[in-house]
Amino acid sequence: MKTYLNPSKEKWEQLTKRPELKAQDLNELVASIFQTVEKLGDAGVRGYTTRFDQVEIFDPKVTSQEIDQACDLVPQKLKDAIETAEKNIRRFHTTQAITETTVETQNGVKCWRETRAIEKVGLYIPGGTAPLFSTVLMLGIPAQIAGCDRIVLCTPPSKDGSINPAILFAAQLVGITEIYKVGGVQAIAALAQGTESIPKVDKIFGPGNQYVTAAKSFALTKGVAIDMPAGPSEVLVIADETSDPSFVAADLLSQAEHGADSQVILLSTSEIMLNRVQTEIEVQLASLPRMEIAIDALNNSSFIQLETLQECLELSNKYAPEHLILAFDSAKEFITQITNAGSVFIGKYSCESAGDYASGTNHTLPTNGYARNYSGVSLDSFIKKITFQELSASGIQTLGPAIEIMAEAEQLIAHKNAVSIRLKALANA
Amino acid sequence: MKTYLNPSKEKWEQLTKRPELKAQDLNELVASIFQTVEKLGDAGVRGYTTRFDQVEIFDPKVTSQEIDQACDLVPQKLKDAIETAEKNIRRFHTTQAITETTVETQNGVKCWRETRAIEKVGLYIPGGTAPLFSTVLMLGIPAQIAGCDRIVLCTPPSKDGSINPAILFAAQLVGITEIYKVGGVQAIAALAQGTESIPKVDKIFGPGNQYVTAAKSFALTKGVAIDMPAGPSEVLVIADETSDPSFVAADLLSQAEHGADSQVILLSTSEIMLNRVQTEIEVQLASLPRMEIAIDALNNSSFIQLETLQECLELSNKYAPEHLILAFDSAKEFITQITNAGSVFIGKYSCESAGDYASGTNHTLPTNGYARNYSGVSLDSFIKKITFQELSASGIQTLGPAIEIMAEAEQLIAHKNAVSIRLKALANA
Repeated sequence: MKTYLNPSKEKWEQLTKRPELKAQDLNELVASIFQTVEKLGDAGVRGYTTRFDQVEIFDPKVTSQEIDQACDLVPQKLKDAIETAEKNIRRFHTTQAITETTVETQNGVKCWRETRAIEKVGLYIPGGTAPLFSTVLMLGIPAQIAGCDRIVLCTPPSKDGSINPAILFAAQLVGITEIYKVGGVQAIAALAQGTESIPKVDKIFGPGNQYVTAAKSFALTKGVAIDMPAGPSEVLVIADETSDPSFVAADLLSQAEHGADSQVILLSTSEIMLNRVQTEIEVQLASLPRMEIAIDALNNSSFIQLETLQECLELSNKYAPEHLILAFDSAKEFITQITNAGSVFIGKYSCESAGDYASGTNHTLPTNGYARNYSGVSLDSFIKKITFQELSASGIQTLGPAIEIMAEAEQLIAHKNAVSIRLKALANA
Repeated sequence: MKTYLNPSKEKWEQLTKRPELKAQDLNELVASIFQTVEKLGDAGVRGYTTRFDQVEIFDPKVTSQEIDQACDLVPQKLKDAIETAEKNIRRFHTTQAITETTVETQNGVKCWRETRAIEKVGLYIPGGTAPLFSTVLMLGIPAQIAGCDRIVLCTPPSKDGSINPAILFAAQLVGITEIYKVGGVQAIAALAQGTESIPKVDKIFGPGNQYVTAAKSFALTKGVAIDMPAGPSEVLVIADETSDPSFVAADLLSQAEHGADSQVILLSTSEIMLNRVQTEIEVQLASLPRMEIAIDALNNSSFIQLETLQECLELSNKYAPEHLILAFDSAKEFITQITNAGSVFIGKYSCESAGDYASGTNHTLPTNGYARNYSGVSLDSFIKKITFQELSASGIQTLGPAIEIMAEAEQLIAHKNAVSIRLKALANA
């Protein structure tokens, strides 16, 4: 990692830049898979599954027997843990449902908003060695609270054609029963366009590798919405002399083990703390199974000493981290200064893993600086808000003349007429 | 227009399809303008203004004198009308600000969300013959209520280098003072990348022609967010025998005059009503200045008779109209059946022009079927929601073991360690 002591503000721009991603253009590959799936439907999907996942799947839909069997395979301790997380995530996301009141903007003119679930949503859960059942909870629970009509889950099969039992357990726990053994670009292509068995959805959620990410961007051109643009995961920790260096090191490592491209930044007012965290990292790193990935990520990371906590917050806002940990005693005093972040962890016992799994907040968050202009996934991500207005006769009589004047000034005379014709009818009534 | 009497449900798919847009690929042109603006900054923008707007603008920033002078030029009646609209829009959008409560998901684990304004936003207002000052209100008011730090407005200059006075009046009314005489792709390129005088913003809002629309999509690749994907404007009206055919005709025409590609659909349980509306359209059409545009739009429109109002709502939900007018007496009983729409107008006095200008709701709405997966612009469009969590010592002690089990099952051992190291420290304390 690189250490910077009191860098001048001119250098901040450089320090808050993400490393350039290798701009591998996957568009052509993605477009051709979309085209094949559009043309051949299930058969097209099947071909790619055989090719990429090395298994022949004739009926991609997971049966209820498979779900039952999987649930039997999950150890009770893991089931209990997942149920604890499920309860907390449900509790927090349930409070995000709000009913807005009707506003009478002027006499006889009532305006309000109502919430409707997005009807069909597709959740993508990556496969591979680490089964991300936690993401099933993070996407499935708000989808289910929102009341989406159809919640479709796609996840790649392993070489023996099975799905990790914990994924199926988490899915049935949150009430998802429509699960397809389909992964990669072909899964996104199927969700975006529909096949004989997989429905075309309105919005696609979920993490994935660069291929899945490229496919989700491409899905936008098919009229489908996506949760948010994706990038490597990242954490920024702010520490002062009250922080615990072993806790800070553990948090930085838990981010670093995600992937070689993970971003890890430590800001501190104390140079001694930076050194102590570095020493702690070396100690803890040694016993990690994913040590090599973590070392790669740490090579890109920065340790930065700044004069004041205020400055640390300022730099953090410029960086706009996905995860922000305020690992010092006076953390709460600095909350109002946070302007750009995905999810924030307050105080020394609030580790990122808590939010990743079980505190109740969502772990699908904006990366790559997108915390400047996007929120993380929440109940809001699964609904639309429709506006309504109701004008009474007296409402249009009071407001109508202003509309006529404005419409005429914009040279939209039919817009004006729609008011005039009503005012005339009322005058003659 | 085409009339369909009791089409079978198999035909609905076809009836709710938008006409294919001419897929003119503007990507190369847009990319080259972005590149030039990135390289040459203001000088690049100036070159395009000279070329496309046929006027040389040396300093694109509108001065406070220009704003003052413009305000003097706006007739008092128009000023009063704009102020009426401003008050209603402000009243409705102010109620969209909400403070959420903190949830203790379990003992010692507190979760909450806080709202922060998106710091820098760019508002694009098209130029041309009809000055869209109403869009200045619709975008500027929620941006200002949200508390965006920097609200930047770009609009193309007319050939004499001026901006329509009503646009400048509306801007100063909502507190926007940073206005640039820049339009087209070069305006979006400047907002997305920044120049010496125009700041790079976090999110770009506003309507525009196909070039501006293509530029906004391209801006997404630069890390900038946009309000929503764009398409031609549209209205769907549902009428029964209680509807007033002249009102319905006026509403259909006010949509049709927007552009030749506007979409206009009328659903009715009464064939007589369809015929009466058609007759009324012919009468009203004759006196419209934009008659030819309206005729083009009407050529693509559909009049559909269905058995029941329920069926009308069902077809409407499938179409997902930007504007939905329930122009019949029992409208309120059908509100809960609406699942996909941008903005809804209830009853015979609620004409679309009311929402376009002054009722209080926003007129920047999802088109082209995007009402299935997007909401219209609101206060929400100008904010992010950041999640927070705070675990106490007893909070991590209670929740920690579940996190450890889940992290281990996902094979993320550093995630587990971040908890274990805290539990150990607490046990030894």
